[in-house]
Amino acid sequence: MLTGIIAAHPDHLWRPENAPRAVVAKRGPRPGKVALVVGGGSGHEPTFLGFVGKGLADAAAIGNVFASPPPQPAVDAALAANGGAGVLFLYGNYAGDVMNFDMASELLEMEGVEAKTVLSTDDIASAPRDQREKRRGVAGNVFIFKAAGAAADMMMPLDEVERIARHANDRTFTMGVALSSCSLPQTRRPSFDLPAGEMEIGMGIHGEPGVRRGPLRPADEVADELMDAILAEMAAPAGSRVAVLVNSLGSTPLMELYILNARIAQRLADAGLVVHKTLVGPYCTSLEMAGASITVMHLDDELQRMLDHPCDCAMFRQG
Amino acid sequence: MLTGIIAAHPDHLWRPENAPRAVVAKRGPRPGKVALVVGGGSGHEPTFLGFVGKGLADAAAIGNVFASPPPQPAVDAALAANGGAGVLFLYGNYAGDVMNFDMASELLEMEGVEAKTVLSTDDIASAPRDQREKRRGVAGNVFIFKAAGAAADMMMPLDEVERIARHANDRTFTMGVALSSCSLPQTRRPSFDLPAGEMEIGMGIHGEPGVRRGPLRPADEVADELMDAILAEMAAPAGSRVAVLVNSLGSTPLMELYILNARIAQRLADAGLVVHKTLVGPYCTSLEMAGASITVMHLDDELQRMLDHPCDCAMFRQG
Repeated sequence: MLTGIIAAHPDHLWRPENAPRAVVAKRGPRPGKVALVVGGGSGHEPTFLGFVGKGLADAAAIGNVFASPPPQPAVDAALAANGGAGVLFLYGNYAGDVMNFDMASELLEMEGVEAKTVLSTDDIASAPRDQREKRRGVAGNVFIFKAAGAAADMMMPLDEVERIARHANDRTFTMGVALSSCSLPQTRRPSFDLPAGEMEIGMGIHGEPGVRRGPLRPADEVADELMDAILAEMAAPAGSRVAVLVNSLGSTPLMELYILNARIAQRLADAGLVVHKTLVGPYCTSLEMAGASITVMHLDDELQRMLDHPCDCAMFRQG
Repeated sequence: MLTGIIAAHPDHLWRPENAPRAVVAKRGPRPGKVALVVGGGSGHEPTFLGFVGKGLADAAAIGNVFASPPPQPAVDAALAANGGAGVLFLYGNYAGDVMNFDMASELLEMEGVEAKTVLSTDDIASAPRDQREKRRGVAGNVFIFKAAGAAADMMMPLDEVERIARHANDRTFTMGVALSSCSLPQTRRPSFDLPAGEMEIGMGIHGEPGVRRGPLRPADEVADELMDAILAEMAAPAGSRVAVLVNSLGSTPLMELYILNARIAQRLADAGLVVHKTLVGPYCTSLEMAGASITVMHLDDELQRMLDHPCDCAMFRQG
């Protein structure tokens, strides 16, 4: 996969010699700039590789399918992207990733490179509201990476990039629905059983159990159930601006995402919220899982400026 | 779907009043510019809507799932995009589309608007080489639309935009492979039976029969079979430049497309061809069909300039 990615995007991406699992932005890293390093298991493309580029992440460490990368690729990615202003590791909150990236941080400190960490925890369904730190990171990464990447691209210092990443995470909320399982290449079988005609609300991007299973409902009702949860969590006053991501988990086509978005836009308008930006498509997938997630980020002036900042990645471009 | 698209992309797209099936670029059409109008059935998103925008198509006429739009949406799209320099209808070669767009052309002529038509015929598997005019248009549309859209954006006259569209089509070749059928919303059943573990080479984007069915093979062998057909048709001398599109038919994830691209890049290098640009992702889908297609465009200086021209569409952006 990585060979095919480098072949497809030679103007955007490269791999350091002897570091085949680290992918680095061609034009992102530079002296004096905080290095934003993301990463995790494969199988979620375009997350993480697609968000490596000027204005967004400087590098990514890539694991096997649904498996954390070991510490070395994270070290390789960080050293290749290092501009002397420190490294921010930013990734979804999963035990394996935390263990490996923490080891990478220690290895970097031994080489005199300062490394900080922010975990994304946008998946509402994965833990109660008062245990936000236990939640998983899912599609909200797109907005959270984007905000931190913009801050780093604006040459803000490490503490400030870290603060903005945390702030972006605090205001980003995702709920998903699965209609079918994906099959891991290792096993060639569905990761879990979800009978035809059923859906699971709150399913994780590796097939982690959701909060409710039941018969498939029309798109508007599914959108309502996800939006009810998001709006309750976000508790944004009328007049607030938001950014929306309607994400395919893999095999759900654009047509169905846009059908969902018709209702989402309606619900946001009914709540008095102003949509500043909408992304629709496969941004954080689970191989060929059928289903979708909705992410809403509650903007303020700072986060809006970060989202609007230009970026040029192989799989995500914004003028 | 269209309501959700307009809600998501208000800066890029609008719909004329009383013309709910015509979608028009916000910033594309302008006085003195040839209007490039594309279109066809739904279910192939981001084709066609995703390619409406500045530098690419000015408008699209949208049919039901896998069904041609009637003449009126094509007329509505053309009139909304009309800049007084004529209209080029550019779409895939399917009988229903030809009938309806031809009627639209006649209606436009009655209103004094000159309309010309170019049909895309890039699907190698759909007819023998000496009957190119009988072939279907598939994912190659992306490159063919892009070339014609650039020519129109450069304010070339209608004859010239038409010539470039034909030239782009002549040099664009696609071969696909399907691993599963999609299900039409109308029927909720697979459109055809393809047993697990089998693949069909040359399958069309509406489930039209391919040229060969057989057991699933490793990705490199599948890429080889498709590339053998494309390279034989294209007959490009060593040193030629090409553009490549590795397209998902729906549920085939990016990971698998990039695995294919590793082999495609190798095969092109072995043939002495120079890859100028590679696109990878879902560009022309068939709802949630599993499978992929490979498109190669044999570039010359003119086509390369057209592909490199900037464009800004809701679902496709190039700096």
